[in-house]
Amino acid sequence: MASNRSKVTITAIAREAGVSVPTVSRVLNGRSDVAPGTRERVEDLLRRRGYRRRSSHPLGPRLVDLVFNDLDSPWAVEIIRGVEDVMHAAGVGTVVSAVHREPAAARQWLQNLRDRASDGVILVSSDLDSSVRHELRRLNVPIVVADSVGGAPLDTPTFGATNWAGGLAATEHLLSLGHRRIGFVAGPRAMMCSRARSDGYRAGLEAAGIAMDDALVVDGDFYHRSGFDGGTALLELDDPPTAIFASSDTMAFGVYEAVRRSGRRVPDDVSVVGFDDLQEARWSSPPLTTVRQPLAEMGMLAARSVLRLASGEDVESPRVELATSLTVRESTAPPGRS
Amino acid sequence: MASNRSKVTITAIAREAGVSVPTVSRVLNGRSDVAPGTRERVEDLLRRRGYRRRSSHPLGPRLVDLVFNDLDSPWAVEIIRGVEDVMHAAGVGTVVSAVHREPAAARQWLQNLRDRASDGVILVSSDLDSSVRHELRRLNVPIVVADSVGGAPLDTPTFGATNWAGGLAATEHLLSLGHRRIGFVAGPRAMMCSRARSDGYRAGLEAAGIAMDDALVVDGDFYHRSGFDGGTALLELDDPPTAIFASSDTMAFGVYEAVRRSGRRVPDDVSVVGFDDLQEARWSSPPLTTVRQPLAEMGMLAARSVLRLASGEDVESPRVELATSLTVRESTAPPGRS
Repeated sequence: MASNRSKVTITAIAREAGVSVPTVSRVLNGRSDVAPGTRERVEDLLRRRGYRRRSSHPLGPRLVDLVFNDLDSPWAVEIIRGVEDVMHAAGVGTVVSAVHREPAAARQWLQNLRDRASDGVILVSSDLDSSVRHELRRLNVPIVVADSVGGAPLDTPTFGATNWAGGLAATEHLLSLGHRRIGFVAGPRAMMCSRARSDGYRAGLEAAGIAMDDALVVDGDFYHRSGFDGGTALLELDDPPTAIFASSDTMAFGVYEAVRRSGRRVPDDVSVVGFDDLQEARWSSPPLTTVRQPLAEMGMLAARSVLRLASGEDVESPRVELATSLTVRESTAPPGRS
Repeated sequence: MASNRSKVTITAIAREAGVSVPTVSRVLNGRSDVAPGTRERVEDLLRRRGYRRRSSHPLGPRLVDLVFNDLDSPWAVEIIRGVEDVMHAAGVGTVVSAVHREPAAARQWLQNLRDRASDGVILVSSDLDSSVRHELRRLNVPIVVADSVGGAPLDTPTFGATNWAGGLAATEHLLSLGHRRIGFVAGPRAMMCSRARSDGYRAGLEAAGIAMDDALVVDGDFYHRSGFDGGTALLELDDPPTAIFASSDTMAFGVYEAVRRSGRRVPDDVSVVGFDDLQEARWSSPPLTTVRQPLAEMGMLAARSVLRLASGEDVESPRVELATSLTVRESTAPPGRS
């Protein structure tokens, strides 16, 4: 398969479509000076024959785009670090952009990308609007997705983490310490990673024969404030939890503050577990027990894959989930220690 | 001045040097196929006549390089955010690199930069090795420095913060709360920004008529561990300080942990002030009182300046220091509250 696909040339497409080679190039470059009917015929053939754009540079890829929704989270820098590491070694520049969930910003970025002749795109947790996705496909630039929110087309390579197993591990750790009332601050429901963590939490409780108590589950959005609000609500219950699992480290820091404000202490009065293992987890006081997802490694794998695609090679597996692992620090202890 | 300088052309330089235009181009592009004597004569003329490379792209700059030593600090993402914001709006790609203080990595980056025809370079806290600096100058790519560590040539525009005033403000805040024994965790002595913060601390004490006590000053390196070690040493003194000013937020979080380990509380037993105002300062428990340096704004200014230079314009002022300001949160209180 791989060798057949990589042999598809512009010349062959032009011959089959009954147009000139420059016309196929114009279609590939998203130029407007091609009749709509011709464009459709050529695009259809490019897709059906599995044409894949090689790097436009004779010496191989030069530039790869790394696209975030926002650069406002500390995990962004961990992914940048992983991607940059691989790209730097390969002699490729990493162009970092934020599209702020705004179609106008995404279109501006797309315009830049075309002008720069980018060799590949790594989308991070991206929910690019469908017209932008369509335009990207039309440009035939290789795309991979890191930390997928779900919704990526099945043929786009995605790199994520075992979120369900991580949710389970966090819950099992708290159960093993003797906790029975374990609160949960969930991430946004629309994101697959956050649903998987919730399901892992639920599965851990069920396996221990503990009935889910909906009062112990509060909604969050991965940001600090929602962790503080959720933690506060949980601690104000008549029968508050003895431990709280937050679906992101940033929310776990919000829970810390809720615990402090209520006059309690972590872990003496309340155990806290996070999810991510940002550098900040080691810097919090007490250091945070958390589920590590290998963000830099995720970035490295995504980077290697987009370089393979840009060189006309295939990737081994379109969907990769890297293992999460529990890192036990000082924010968890048996209940009722105080 | 500006208009004269921007009129210097390759043709004029070639005529004056008595060589062909392609020879001048080869010198500008760092190619090796130019006789050493010719290269020197042309480089000398380019420098003396103030030749400045315009963007090699007819539509203006396309790519700017943003270069860090390491991508391991949360303030990196704040600077990236500011730079990306300006570049995105200008339709320019931001290539992010880390050179890890390794000459080989810096040379590899330089090679990529040349191949990509980068239109400008923003160095962050950079101590690039002198051969790399020399090569950059030879390429005539505009360079600006953000968060200078000192040592940048006088004609390189630099963007920093008023570190001395920030150190003073932190110390005055603690004095105004009634503290007299104020510990200090210093940053690396080799960095100008960190010397300025130390001098501000010293000036604040002197203005209040308090003699410097060398026992209250410990060395750090801006990283978390050194804040923990320094904080621990200060709290183990026979007459420990009632407040500690750390020269970076990350070190302040280390001090938090030292306070917690010693069985004390922030701010009841020990007040803590940081420096940076990372997002993490709002997320710490208690939220950290700290000196804000406008990192994103620093990145934005550096970005606008490098774009001006890349378009053949001058920048207004070669050295800009943005104002720091104290942000009071919950980690500081009068002494002896507990």
